[in-house]
Amino acid sequence: MSINVAVAGATGYAGGEILRLLLRHPAYLAGELKIGALTGHSNAGESVGSLMPHLPQLREREIVDTTVENLRGHDVVFLGLPHGHSAEIGRQLGPEVLVIDCAADFRLRNESDWHDFYNGDYAGCWPYGIPEIPGNRELLRETKRVAVPGCFPTTITLGTLPAVSAGLIEPSLSVVAVTGVSGAGKKANVKLLGAETMGNLRAYSPGGTHRHTPEIIQNLSPFSDSEVSVSFTPVLAPLTRGILAIITAPLADGVDKLQVRAAYEKFYAEETFCNVLPEGIQPETQNVSGSNMVHIQTHVDGRAGQLVISAALDNLTKGTGGAAVQCMNLALGLEETAGLPCAGLAP
Amino acid sequence: MSINVAVAGATGYAGGEILRLLLRHPAYLAGELKIGALTGHSNAGESVGSLMPHLPQLREREIVDTTVENLRGHDVVFLGLPHGHSAEIGRQLGPEVLVIDCAADFRLRNESDWHDFYNGDYAGCWPYGIPEIPGNRELLRETKRVAVPGCFPTTITLGTLPAVSAGLIEPSLSVVAVTGVSGAGKKANVKLLGAETMGNLRAYSPGGTHRHTPEIIQNLSPFSDSEVSVSFTPVLAPLTRGILAIITAPLADGVDKLQVRAAYEKFYAEETFCNVLPEGIQPETQNVSGSNMVHIQTHVDGRAGQLVISAALDNLTKGTGGAAVQCMNLALGLEETAGLPCAGLAP
Amino acid sequence: MSINVAVAGATGYAGGEILRLLLRHPAYLAGELKIGALTGHSNAGESVGSLMPHLPQLREREIVDTTVENLRGHDVVFLGLPHGHSAEIGRQLGPEVLVIDCAADFRLRNESDWHDFYNGDYAGCWPYGIPEIPGNRELLRETKRVAVPGCFPTTITLGTLPAVSAGLIEPSLSVVAVTGVSGAGKKANVKLLGAETMGNLRAYSPGGTHRHTPEIIQNLSPFSDSEVSVSFTPVLAPLTRGILAIITAPLADGVDKLQVRAAYEKFYAEETFCNVLPEGIQPETQNVSGSNMVHIQTHVDGRAGQLVISAALDNLTKGTGGAAVQCMNLALGLEETAGLPCAGLAP
Amino acid sequence: MSINVAVAGATGYAGGEILRLLLRHPAYLAGELKIGALTGHSNAGESVGSLMPHLPQLREREIVDTTVENLRGHDVVFLGLPHGHSAEIGRQLGPEVLVIDCAADFRLRNESDWHDFYNGDYAGCWPYGIPEIPGNRELLRETKRVAVPGCFPTTITLGTLPAVSAGLIEPSLSVVAVTGVSGAGKKANVKLLGAETMGNLRAYSPGGTHRHTPEIIQNLSPFSDSEVSVSFTPVLAPLTRGILAIITAPLADGVDKLQVRAAYEKFYAEETFCNVLPEGIQPETQNVSGSNMVHIQTHVDGRAGQLVISAALDNLTKGTGGAAVQCMNLALGLEETAGLPCAGLAP
Repeated sequence: MSINVAVAGATGYAGGEILRLLLRHPAYLAGELKIGALTGHSNAGESVGSLMPHLPQLREREIVDTTVENLRGHDVVFLGLPHGHSAEIGRQLGPEVLVIDCAADFRLRNESDWHDFYNGDYAGCWPYGIPEIPGNRELLRETKRVAVPGCFPTTITLGTLPAVSAGLIEPSLSVVAVTGVSGAGKKANVKLLGAETMGNLRAYSPGGTHRHTPEIIQNLSPFSDSEVSVSFTPVLAPLTRGILAIITAPLADGVDKLQVRAAYEKFYAEETFCNVLPEGIQPETQNVSGSNMVHIQTHVDGRAGQLVISAALDNLTKGTGGAAVQCMNLALGLEETAGLPCAGLAP
Repeated sequence: MSINVAVAGATGYAGGEILRLLLRHPAYLAGELKIGALTGHSNAGESVGSLMPHLPQLREREIVDTTVENLRGHDVVFLGLPHGHSAEIGRQLGPEVLVIDCAADFRLRNESDWHDFYNGDYAGCWPYGIPEIPGNRELLRETKRVAVPGCFPTTITLGTLPAVSAGLIEPSLSVVAVTGVSGAGKKANVKLLGAETMGNLRAYSPGGTHRHTPEIIQNLSPFSDSEVSVSFTPVLAPLTRGILAIITAPLADGVDKLQVRAAYEKFYAEETFCNVLPEGIQPETQNVSGSNMVHIQTHVDGRAGQLVISAALDNLTKGTGGAAVQCMNLALGLEETAGLPCAGLAP
Repeated sequence: MSINVAVAGATGYAGGEILRLLLRHPAYLAGELKIGALTGHSNAGESVGSLMPHLPQLREREIVDTTVENLRGHDVVFLGLPHGHSAEIGRQLGPEVLVIDCAADFRLRNESDWHDFYNGDYAGCWPYGIPEIPGNRELLRETKRVAVPGCFPTTITLGTLPAVSAGLIEPSLSVVAVTGVSGAGKKANVKLLGAETMGNLRAYSPGGTHRHTPEIIQNLSPFSDSEVSVSFTPVLAPLTRGILAIITAPLADGVDKLQVRAAYEKFYAEETFCNVLPEGIQPETQNVSGSNMVHIQTHVDGRAGQLVISAALDNLTKGTGGAAVQCMNLALGLEETAGLPCAGLAP
Repeated sequence: MSINVAVAGATGYAGGEILRLLLRHPAYLAGELKIGALTGHSNAGESVGSLMPHLPQLREREIVDTTVENLRGHDVVFLGLPHGHSAEIGRQLGPEVLVIDCAADFRLRNESDWHDFYNGDYAGCWPYGIPEIPGNRELLRETKRVAVPGCFPTTITLGTLPAVSAGLIEPSLSVVAVTGVSGAGKKANVKLLGAETMGNLRAYSPGGTHRHTPEIIQNLSPFSDSEVSVSFTPVLAPLTRGILAIITAPLADGVDKLQVRAAYEKFYAEETFCNVLPEGIQPETQNVSGSNMVHIQTHVDGRAGQLVISAALDNLTKGTGGAAVQCMNLALGLEETAGLPCAGLAP
């Protein structure tokens, strides 16, 4: 077997994370997976050694322009491009090429959601890259096109799905997701300067105005009898990697702590990357840093009649690049977990 | 006029913040307020210059033991002691001494709340140090005993009060409050090490188990026709100072954005320290760092039918030491805002 | 008395810091100092309330364009502009206006140093804003033009001057100055993003290539019998405010610890803002955060025959805006220390 | 082949890092290396799932007491214990057991150095775990006892060795090493609280008083014709992992940039873990985070006549746990680089 892989937008954070993971992938170490074209935009012509010194194995490699020509001839193409650039490239790459898109272009099934939250033409919808959503894994095994989910939707969906699908809550969610700054990408922006983010906390896109809101609803709705509503507010915190989502929803009548715990443990019993923590142990982002895990804990707030769910992941790994590699593994028929760390870089 | 002030627990974070503020207080600069005994526990006998080099004006002063003897003979005594130590000291200081307690000992009006959330005997209840709660300012002008509120209750109460008292929401609150690490105080604890808090996010006391929960309900209930419930989850984030609370609650029928904005602006029209931000500007903790301000923004989430409120303050200033000085000003008949910064240390 | 003050570049970090300090300046509080024009570039027309929510007292004020017309008619003009913009504005403002420039334009006495390290024409040299350098205070009392020093030169000069002027060391300095990210200013730059600076340490301009090198040598040379050399390397660290400089230099023959300590204490005996710490207490940037202090400690390394000096300040306060206000005080005949905090915002 | 490995002090940072690396070691993945006893002190009896949730693969495992009995019967024993505990355990484990000690107990060859910097009896000296020091790799292949070096000595030694051994500098080093907080270990200590380390910079053990000083001199001396002196000052900065050392030393006569560059590239031409960066690219700790790499850059400061060297590594990986695994690989005859990441977790 020989798999030739290209990464478009290799110098961005998603692209860099995919490369970091591929470099320890067993297929790469066995010489069966090769890293082909690495493309960039403003940096074309420069070396990986200068642009991404954290990948010393590739230091002699050169970044080339992001063109369809440079991406052709690979078996797998990862797209780590700004939103809106994937549709055209995806169309021009043949149906035999596995295209895995880390942008939002192909995530939404409902065209009107697209127009409510994004600009530009609606491009359609590809199989959605959370294999842990029941039904998805099978689709991902047979596709040549994958839409990698947003990092917030992955956190919130995996945190909430067991409760929604078991009918433990009324699906009216209040969600606050605290996030590190790398989710905003590697582009110059005064509000994302170190001096504007260290020692600082700031909400943004409050109350359901964030683009990831419809994606969360789309994920949960098929598993709920009643209409799902999500009031979602992200908060920017002074760390680089990591999302911690706190999801609050009214408990269904008569639901108790044991039922909740049993439902979560059962739902994820076979899932390597979903870790329902022991009672009393809270998710911490450092425990999933650089890993492909989601850590989840639940708490029944009896006084207020609410279920409080905490879920943590690394937005660049399980939230983007790790999910992309996981989907590649599925689509290529490799072991799903290959090359994906379970241990987090704590401390 | 000559006011002699003692600070018990001067080497802790609350005590240090009170001193930082007093050193620029106009009464101190005019020689009318004097800083008397500074007490500590394990550090007694050492100099301020060694223990608190950030207060160079006091470098030659010595920390003495926290005893009633050392605290006697002052007009004002600030107590920055661990919970449970204030009752005995408060009893032994004469009724003519203004005692301002930064611990939880005298905050709760309801003895059963105390027993649900704290250990030890219930000590009673003192006038509560949020002058911005209607009715409180008058009480604080005539008291010799003040219970300084918890930092979370101040943030959440001031953020929510205008909506509750105008009936804009159903008082069923989901609250996530992201906080810096200084709120936990200056005591050795592995979970609060730099290596366990930097680059990390962690929820603790989830879902209403935090001790500040009954205090929040106590503050809001008098202003609500229906029963107040609060599902409160604090999240520890990698910064030293600052709390950002995100409060989500169901909008009352027919309430719109203009009504919300008008209610907030009217409620705080005369309050120096409560800043309802211009539309579209989000509270950021760096903008209130070291200041006595609360910054507040609201957002009507029409799809989800929720009001989302963001409120930010500095837990050591408006959240503790600044509130303590504000209450001292009131109780002594000084200008309420004297010595209290409005400008935050941004960036 | 009525002093009308303008700030050019008010929305930058230097401008914002000057405003933060002026708002608690006794002359401002007494109504004798007025804050006039606040200028910006890309932000002209917007309100301070939107652009700088940390200054609520000025929230209704509007930022106007940075033009000579807008700056005319003030008694004091602070320039917080990028390097290269001050010369032209300084020329057009009358000689009766006190102009205090926070850029590098007028710092260097030696034209060839200018051409070695900066671009553009050499603009000349103004009185240099470190009053603690012997001889400078008198000049600053009689000038209408001030060049505020660079933040690194202030730290390193004040840390080293007592040793150099007492002949305690050979003036061959190895300097590593660790700095927060606000020193780089409020401009979009990928290398200064939160994601590129948090959890990261990076040297830049190593080994004397930094522009502040000739300024350090210029400051120390008049106090040394032999030629001063400085190998200076700044290191960017994950904090917003603060510089900690470690200066290593060979001890002169026979110099011991007591001599060093005595020399430092004597040199700064009358200086409010220079704090030679008690033995064994190390400078920490949090102890000077937001204050106008420099904290200094020395250590005789007998084995290696070196003197190791540590000096800490807040780059935006004593390193820029505080120094600017201190020089304004001197030039206007006010008390030199007026409005300048000595207590740091620790923790 | 079946290798049974125990980790003493498994819940500390060194122990945790060794486990993180072993869990992706090819011998572990192939079932040839087994993780046996995991010992702790205060935590004995608790599960890994509760104590170290970042290692989900071991979640069911129990921590046992640190006793010789529990450590017996393993082929490899890693010791991640506080200084002073390794000698006794090392003595009682048979000579056929590979013992790899992460403490300082067996690092110093010179008994008088030990007494100058440490307490307790001198225990002797074991082969020293920097394989990249010429001559060491051979010793490490044939030993059953390894002393893992201190994290500062590894950084400074690998940064300086090419210059010292090629005679490019006079070996009179001024060293400032900026470090993250995890190097101090996982023990409660007020000075290491998040609130005392975030937003803060602090030198400690200045001017050669740090215990790692004699270890640095011991490493460099064999490669120098003249006596080595090191004035070493560590600086604590607000990040968890990473050391960036800036080493300044007088250039030998006539040495130029090309010679320096050539000497460094030649010295490390065959070393996987030592990366001499392309010209103009500075070492950054994020680029080596979680990896076993050292990144090195040099700069000739012609004006000051100094060579400035920057070297970065992750104190827990190449600085401790990675070095330990690298030495295990050598001593067991495995591939030296097995299981050791080269890519850093940037951003």
